[in-house]
This record gives sequence, structure tokens and C-alpha cells, in this order.
Amino acid sequence: MKTNKVRIVFHPIGKRGIVKSGVTILEASRELGIGIISICGGQGRCGKCKVVILKGAKNLSPLTEAELKLLSEHEIKNGYRLACKAIITADLEVYIPESSRTGRQRLQTEGIEVPVPPNPVIRKYLLKLPQATLEDLRDDEKRLLDALKDQYGFSNLEVDYNVLITLPEIIRKENWIVTVVIWNNKRVIAVEPGDTREKCYGFAIDIGTTKLAGFLLDLNSGKVLSVVSRMNPQIPYGEDVLSRITYAMEGFDKLEELNKVITEAVSGMISEACRKAGVKEENVYEIVAVGNTCMQCLFLNLWPKYLGLAPYVPPVKRGVDVKASTLNLKANKNANVHFLPVIGGFVGADNVAVILTSNMMESDEIIMAIDVGTNTEIDVGNREGIMATSCASGPAFEGMHIKYGMRAATGAIERVFIEPDTLEVHYKTIDDAPPVGICGSGLVDVIAEMFKTGIINEYGKINGELANETSRIRRGEKGYDFVLAWAKETGIDSDIVITQADVQELLKAKAAIHTGAALLMKRLGLTVKDIDKLVVAGAFGNYIDPESARIIGMYPEIPLNKIVFVGNAAGTGARMALISKEMRTKAEKIKEFVRYLELSADPDFTEEYMKSLFIPHADKSRFKEILMLVEKTRRKKT
Amino acid sequence: MKTNKVRIVFHPIGKRGIVKSGVTILEASRELGIGIISICGGQGRCGKCKVVILKGAKNLSPLTEAELKLLSEHEIKNGYRLACKAIITADLEVYIPESSRTGRQRLQTEGIEVPVPPNPVIRKYLLKLPQATLEDLRDDEKRLLDALKDQYGFSNLEVDYNVLITLPEIIRKENWIVTVVIWNNKRVIAVEPGDTREKCYGFAIDIGTTKLAGFLLDLNSGKVLSVVSRMNPQIPYGEDVLSRITYAMEGFDKLEELNKVITEAVSGMISEACRKAGVKEENVYEIVAVGNTCMQCLFLNLWPKYLGLAPYVPPVKRGVDVKASTLNLKANKNANVHFLPVIGGFVGADNVAVILTSNMMESDEIIMAIDVGTNTEIDVGNREGIMATSCASGPAFEGMHIKYGMRAATGAIERVFIEPDTLEVHYKTIDDAPPVGICGSGLVDVIAEMFKTGIINEYGKINGELANETSRIRRGEKGYDFVLAWAKETGIDSDIVITQADVQELLKAKAAIHTGAALLMKRLGLTVKDIDKLVVAGAFGNYIDPESARIIGMYPEIPLNKIVFVGNAAGTGARMALISKEMRTKAEKIKEFVRYLELSADPDFTEEYMKSLFIPHADKSRFKEILMLVEKTRRKKT
Repeated sequence: MKTNKVRIVFHPIGKRGIVKSGVTILEASRELGIGIISICGGQGRCGKCKVVILKGAKNLSPLTEAELKLLSEHEIKNGYRLACKAIITADLEVYIPESSRTGRQRLQTEGIEVPVPPNPVIRKYLLKLPQATLEDLRDDEKRLLDALKDQYGFSNLEVDYNVLITLPEIIRKENWIVTVVIWNNKRVIAVEPGDTREKCYGFAIDIGTTKLAGFLLDLNSGKVLSVVSRMNPQIPYGEDVLSRITYAMEGFDKLEELNKVITEAVSGMISEACRKAGVKEENVYEIVAVGNTCMQCLFLNLWPKYLGLAPYVPPVKRGVDVKASTLNLKANKNANVHFLPVIGGFVGADNVAVILTSNMMESDEIIMAIDVGTNTEIDVGNREGIMATSCASGPAFEGMHIKYGMRAATGAIERVFIEPDTLEVHYKTIDDAPPVGICGSGLVDVIAEMFKTGIINEYGKINGELANETSRIRRGEKGYDFVLAWAKETGIDSDIVITQADVQELLKAKAAIHTGAALLMKRLGLTVKDIDKLVVAGAFGNYIDPESARIIGMYPEIPLNKIVFVGNAAGTGARMALISKEMRTKAEKIKEFVRYLELSADPDFTEEYMKSLFIPHADKSRFKEILMLVEKTRRKKT
Repeated sequence: MKTNKVRIVFHPIGKRGIVKSGVTILEASRELGIGIISICGGQGRCGKCKVVILKGAKNLSPLTEAELKLLSEHEIKNGYRLACKAIITADLEVYIPESSRTGRQRLQTEGIEVPVPPNPVIRKYLLKLPQATLEDLRDDEKRLLDALKDQYGFSNLEVDYNVLITLPEIIRKENWIVTVVIWNNKRVIAVEPGDTREKCYGFAIDIGTTKLAGFLLDLNSGKVLSVVSRMNPQIPYGEDVLSRITYAMEGFDKLEELNKVITEAVSGMISEACRKAGVKEENVYEIVAVGNTCMQCLFLNLWPKYLGLAPYVPPVKRGVDVKASTLNLKANKNANVHFLPVIGGFVGADNVAVILTSNMMESDEIIMAIDVGTNTEIDVGNREGIMATSCASGPAFEGMHIKYGMRAATGAIERVFIEPDTLEVHYKTIDDAPPVGICGSGLVDVIAEMFKTGIINEYGKINGELANETSRIRRGEKGYDFVLAWAKETGIDSDIVITQADVQELLKAKAAIHTGAALLMKRLGLTVKDIDKLVVAGAFGNYIDPESARIIGMYPEIPLNKIVFVGNAAGTGARMALISKEMRTKAEKIKEFVRYLELSADPDFTEEYMKSLFIPHADKSRFKEILMLVEKTRRKKT
């Protein structure tokens, strides 16, 4: 074969380049600096490097046996190839599905920056005041308000009591020149000597049941200045929302205890974010918080008891404004905290933020949004109506209750591929460090791979008979273990294994999510074919391989090309509401627009959940394509 | 003389009775249980028992020599008699001027109850809420607001954040029946289980530089339930406002120190008032405070520095609303504190309250109002205009800087009469206890008597030559002392004396007050004859004998029958603003309506003050009537 120069374009990033003919798409992508996932090292075994050929399908080598096995019929029909197997002979346009891209954000605190024109509730105004004289005996407040009217046309402004305390000293400090901080065109919340207009910051915080993500923003430009994250310090009081509600319900002192740890943590995050950005806390004037409804109650110190008792109504759904100082948060002493509205007892402000980010309420397409977390919220709908629910998926994706589970940090196994023939394991760790544990995305991969290769059956049971074939399967404390990494490879001096209990833990989590998605579709009279887009939000959702997720039946069987990842959409929504008043108004509309489906009250809940505990599902007709794919892999083995 | 029965009517109390002819008016009054002041024991020497004969002047014995000496020509012309000397021969109607009445309120915390129809900012509403069900998933706040709309027509109410905290528990406690506390038809500040409508209280506090007076009111009825008073705990930081401003100016920590002691004291008073009335602090929902502008700053923790520096502008003049909890006051946690508006740096909310109480802004008559205190505020005007000023009269009337000075408490000498011939002293003590000191009213009396009897001259100098005539005059530490009570009569084992320094101290106080009154009249182009009414407010003003006050030149020479006493008008104004929204609106109007005269900036200030240091005044033409009276007394002696 003569080697010619060929032109190749990679979508959706729009990267163009020239490569030699005769190389694979994977090789070409590497040459052009584009990341396509590959775990088996380009051997056509892991099937992670799927791409779609947009133009020039005939300019590729024919489908290989590996591709015929690893791609579904539907995929083949739609132009899918494995990048490691398809050899380029002439010009080509290739689409890399998000699921095949490397470099998806690892930091859970990142989300898609939705461009919102900055129109924050906080504005600063420079003011020159006339000096007080015996002929002009106006009091200091009146002098200020008159000047704001004369110079900026403001009327009916209120001056916060705290501002009055120091006002006399401040207006005289820089020769009667001050900067006035006005909240929502309504209230003077700070007056500062001289010109401080440049220093105008806000903080957005996503309060997850397990993790906190905070963002310091410049309110003038809308830019993110620094990002901080922490574990939710309430975890010791209960890993899920129900156990925290149970703790708080014991008394208002217990509620205050939970409130104190979270507000202290957020305070610390504000300080940290300010330090990172070289900004003073006193110049942080507005804080927007999102979280589920339990987090709303615990952060705002509201009695959460009836979130845990039918009919599960929250104390307040509207967006709540409260002074940062009331919550003992470190910021300007008159800073306002806005907690975005919640939809119901179990669908909170974080979900409002997801709907805000996804533009679902304006969409013609029917969108399913899944925000995977310790509580997973799911929304289905479009401009004509949205229904939402919440599933208690638990903290398994954070590595909790998993023997070698860990957070997505250096050394965590994040991708797994198991050779069908030999059951040998290939894995990728974060930062390519020696493995020290397994994080959420690795767990989903490993369950999917174990199922594909027959190590576990549809009930999730590890096949003990295979212990004869491979030393990776061996008796554990309860049932069999599967060895992912041998001690000698690891950074921890012990084998890293997946236990039978680990598998069951993950199946409970995925079953909860699938049940929610399935019942929402059922209530709306939709099937999986009606879903035009699956928006996957949240940290785990972002890292998890969507194919693995589909294989284990975590998501409905929605084609991979309909899946988009939006990262920490809750955090993005919080940032949007921080820099845009219109987004707050829209959030209130979302609160009214979205109907809530109470899963526990749904007559089909138990049955659907039981069926969803199977891999991928007890109702095989719903996962035909996936089961065919698995069948292929297993056939390969036999 | 035949003894017949005669009819006598005492005005203004309207007491009618029948007595034997041949008794004096004083004897008749005692028989009928009416108090007329008499210090000399009815001997016609002290001149305190002046009454006015309204009908039947001819039915009295002729004017005695004593009366010709003790009454001015003006008084004789206007029907004045001494009650102890005028013998009744037939039917009579007598008017007792306030200055001659015993039983004027001693408690400085009392004021005239101006009838104001109750229309407080706080209202309670009983509410039955529909229960939450799976069909009615409204959040608790929405449920409450919807019910308030349905049952009472409220819309656009805000619910205070603090209310949300416990709302879920409270609405479910008494079977979804609650009482809602609404502030100003605007804000839900409390929700209580069951029907608590009867428990609705407010607290009015008059913050004097020296004394605090507090009143617990039932907001439903407008009735006073209990009264409490304390010394201002800021006294150790400076007795007058300027020294407190100087202390606070050292730094915000010093200001906070001053703020802390006053708010703690007020908190204690609220508790005490509640205890006395058998009421819970949490049912106190509104607090109205008045005080001068320095007290406003120190109570509200506002930086007072520029009150002490020209042009003396306050931080804020409007009425300030702030949460009681912000000031650490013991009351309902969402109780509001309303500090009435102030007029200027040295004319505060206490003066607004006096104008409110006196109805000056609606009056056709020209009124002078004097609120005697450590700072004395004076207003002159009517519906066409009011001018106000403030005089640093100092704490002498509270007994401070006076050797045997004391507050008006048991054993304080409160009335004094000196025999012109012998210089022997008659006095009356509070509760008729053995004397232990002398209070403000006694001091004014004693200076007036010493002047009348020539013990002091127009400069206030004690005449040492009289030491030859009476052992009551003797050398003291500085100049001469005058012995008021011998040790054997007292309750303290030592002679109670008035020193030369005491006299000077009192003269400074009275000069400050007179200067203010004189300059206000001058600026308004008025003379003393234009004043239709002198309203005397404040504790001291209330007890002080107006004649004595006139003799020493503390007030302008306004006829006694034009003087009315309104007691603690500041406290009364605070109570009015507590039970009536209209009064708050009016207070804001007063703030705009009243012009402020800055005494220290007045070109005539120094001269007028120097002249006012004389007894009664260096300009003798202004005190003709009084000087004639004094002349008579002195002639009697010669």
C-alpha cells in the first residue's frame, strides 16, 4: 500500500490535520494530540475507542473480526468503528462520542460554563458626596441616598442597619468619596471608602450529600477565579439523607450541630477560595447555594423532620435569602446567601440547577437528565412538561461500602478491561500511579466487564467454578472475590479485590437509578425511543463509562450518541444564578413547572426495583442491544 | 362669727364638698382629702399653697399681710390667695394650680397617658391550616401564606427566615391550628401553636442620659402592664453625652462596650417588666425606644464621633428598625426595635416624643416645651413652625456633683422653705423619712429660698457675714456652707449642707436651660408674653416647684397658670409610637418639620449664658415680677 498524505477532521472539536495513509484512526488521533480512550493498548479487545465515521467510510479498511464482536448491529449500521482497528486509506471525517474521549473533566467541581450575560444582584457604584456643613445638616444616610439619587437615579433604596454603624467614619475617610454596594437595586449592603469597584466577588457552592464544591467568581466579569472542594463533614452523622434527617430529628440541638459543621466547612471553603485567588473575604457580597432538600434544611438550619415522613413536604420551596452572618459564613458582613428553590422533599435545588443548565424547560426535544450522586435526581421532559424524581442510590460511587473503594484520586483504578479469554485484567489508574483502590467509574467498568466475561451472572453472583481457571477468582470472607490487581503491582502491599458484597452494593445503587428513570418514562407514557437526549450530570456520571453503565443497566438503553455529559451541573447552575438575576427568576419558574414523582408512593416501585437489581434488568426485552453485545463477547470466549 | 355649712368646689379635679365656715381653704382641702402643698405648716410663710379663686372671692377673709408679701401684684390681681390664710365664710370655687398640688407623680417613669386609639404594628391572627397530604404537597410556608390569603386577605407577606426554622414542627403541634404574628401588614415574624392571640405585648423604653424608664404594654388594649426604671449604666463612662462620645470615639471596641452595658440593662428591664406582669419575654414582639441622639447612637451601636464635632450631624435621622436579637435584647427572637427619629445631633427622639405628646405641631397656641434632664431639650412653636435646641444642663438635678445630692428617693429633701427672719429651715422629705440628702426639686427650692432670704446674692455667693446671725452659715472647705439639716435630725449622722460649690453647680445647670429658652424666643422673634403655654416635661421638671424655678431664673418668667406638667413625655411618646402606627408616621413628619438651633453656633450664646448665670438673670427687666416678690420677702426680714 502506497503511503499518501490524507486529510482527517475530528469532530466535535473541529481539529483538522494531515497524516500518512495506513495508520489507524487511534494512531492519527495521537499524532494530532487528540485523546481517544484505549485500555487494551490498541489490540481491539476493550472496545472503548468507538468512533463514528461521518464522511469517507469507504476510505477505511474493512470491519475487522474484533469490531464485529465489540460493536452492536445498531452501531455498525450507524457508522461506528473501533479507532484502533480502522486503518485510514484516504480523507476522513470522524466524530468522537463523548464516551470515547479522554480528558473528560476529572474534577467534580467543574461543569460546563453556560454562557450567561453577567447581570448579578450585586453592583458597585462610585459616589462623590457633598461635605456636611452648618448649612447642610443632612444626616449621613440621607446624604448618601440623595447622592445615589442625583448621580445614579436610585430611589427607594434601603440602607442596611449594619452599614449605618460605620457609615460616619467611612464617608469621611477618603475625602467623601465612597463605593456603594447595592443588592438587587433595593438595598445598600456596604459602603466602602474610595473606589473599590474592581473588587466585587461572589461564591457559588454545591452542597452534595457527600461532596462540597465551591467556586469564587468575579461578579463584574462572571469569571471563575478559584475552585475548592471538600467532603461533606456531615458524613459521620449519616451517609445518606435519611440517616441525617433521623439524626437531626432528635432535637434542635442536633440540627444545629449538623448545621454548624456544614456552615463551618463552607466558611473554610470561602476562605480557601479567597486565599487562592488573592481576594479578601469582605469583598464577597453574594453566595448562591444549591443542594438537595435535606442539604437545604441542614445548611439553612431548617427543621428537616417532615422530609422524612410522608407526604415528605419541605419547610419552604422558594429560593431563600438569608444573611451570611446569620449562618456564620465568612464573607462581607452583609453578604446575602441565596439558596435556590427546591421542587419537593426529595428533589432539591441541585436538580433545579441541572434543569437550568440543560435548558430543558425551553427544549423541544425530550430530555432525560440524570444527576448521579448519593441521591440521584432524574428529570424527564421538555417545554411541555417535566417530571422529576429522586433515587437513594447511596454512596457506593464515592467508594463507600466497597472494600477497596476510594474517591477519584491519584492511584484510583478508573477504567477496567477484562480479557474474555484469559480473564486477565487491564486497568488505568488516575495519574497512572500504582493502584491503591477503585473509584466509581472503575467500579462500574469492572461490574460491566465481569458480566460481559461471565465472571458474574445476571444476579451478580461471582461464578466460583471459574476459580479453577484463574487465580483471580478465589474464596473471600463471603462468597468469592475477584482480584483486580496483585499486591506486587499496587501501592498498598495487598491485592485489590472486588468482593461479592461489593457487587451487590453496586447493583443496589444502579437499580435505584434505573427504577427512577423507568418509572418516570412510564408515568409520562414514554419509551426509551422517545428520549432525544440523555444529559448525564454529576461527578460520577461524568467519569463513568456510559457503555459500562448501560451494560449493567444503570441507565435505560439509550444510544451512546444521544448521551451528553455536563459535569457538575448543580455547580454550574449555582454559578449561573450567582451572576444572573434572570437565572434566579427562571429557577423559581422551574420550581413551579416541574412535577414531582414520589417513587415510594408509586404502585410499580417495588416490582421495578426488584427487576432492576438484575444485570442489566430482569426484563431482557428492554436491553436487547446490550445483551447482544454481551453475547458476542461471551461467544468470543467460548 | 356664726359657723355655717358652706359649699366648696376644688378644680380642676372637680371635687365638691361641704365644710364649716371659718376654716381656711387649706383646712377645707385636707378635710376633703385634697392635697395642697404646705411646708411652713400653714403659717403663711412658705408661700407654697397658692390657689386661685374662681368664684366667691368676696366669701373669703381679706388679704393678710403674709399674702401681700408672698403674692405678686399680678397674682393678687388674678385672684391668687394663700390657702392657709384665706378663711372661708361662704360658698367658693377654688382652682389649685399644678404647682400647689401634692401628689404630682414622683416616679419619673410616669407621663400623661395621651389617648391614642390602638393600632399597633403587631397583629395576631388565628389560622386553621389544611393538612399536608400526597395530593397537597405545598411546602409549609406556602401552606401558611395561602391560608393567610384565604382567611384574612393578605398578599405579598414575607416570612421571616427565623420563622421557617421551626415552622414544620409548630404547624403540626396543635392539629394545624396556629397564631400568626404579623408586623406592619408586611412580615410574618412569628408563628405559634394554637391560639395565643391574647398574649401580645410590646415594650417602650426612654433612654435618658442618666435614667432609663421602661413600660410593658398590652398591644391589644394599649394598657400599661408594668413600669420599670434603672440608672443608665453608662454613667461611669461619662456623665454627659459629650464625655460618652469622647469615650466611644476611641474605637469601635469602646463603642461596643458602651452599647453592651446599655442593651444589657434594657434587656434586664424587659425581663423585670415581664416578671412583674406575669408575661413571657417571647410574647414581647415590638420595642420602641427614644433618647437623645447620643443615646440613639450608643443604643443602636452607631459611630457617634461626628455628633461631637461641628457641624454635629447624626449618622441617621429617620426612625430605625432593627431586630431585637441584633441588639441582644431579650424578647421574641424576631421582635423589632423601632428607635424614633431624631431631629439633629443634639435634639433626639426623646424630643420628637415630647412634641408628639404635647400636640405642638397641631397647636394654634404658641407652646414652649422644656424637657429637663442631663440634656435639656427645648422647643418653641406651633403648627406654623417649631424650633428646637438642646442645652447641656448636666446631672446636677440627679444630685450629681452636689455634696449631699441624691436621687428622688426615700429621705431625700424635696421641698425647702427658709424663714426670712430667722433663716430657720423647714423641709419635707420623700416618704417623710429622716433626711439623708437632697434631690433635684429640693435643690432648686433651696437656691430660690437662699436667694429670697438674702443668704446668697445675685451671683450666688453665700453671704459670710450672716455667720454672725445664724450657726447655719459657717465656713466650709471652699467658701461658706449653709446647713439644711442638723445631724441629729438626719438619718446619716452628719449635717446636711449646701456648699458654695453646690450653688455654682446648680447655677450652671439653670443658666444652660434659660439660655436655650431665651435664644429660641429671640430667633423666633417672640417675647415671653407670646408664649401661651409652658409644657414642662421630664422627671425633674415634674417635681421642681415652678415658682422656685422661676425665682432662680431657670425658666423665663412665664406666669404659673400657663405652666403644665406632662411628666415623662419622652416615655409617653414612646408608648404612643408603640401602640399606634399613625404616631410613627407623625414622628417622621416632626423630624422634617422642626428646625434645629445649634446653640454653640449662635452669636448670642456666650453673652446670654453669662447673663443667665445670675439669679435670676443679669437682665433684671426680664424678671420684674419675680424680683418684686423677692424684694417683698427681703423687706419682711428688714
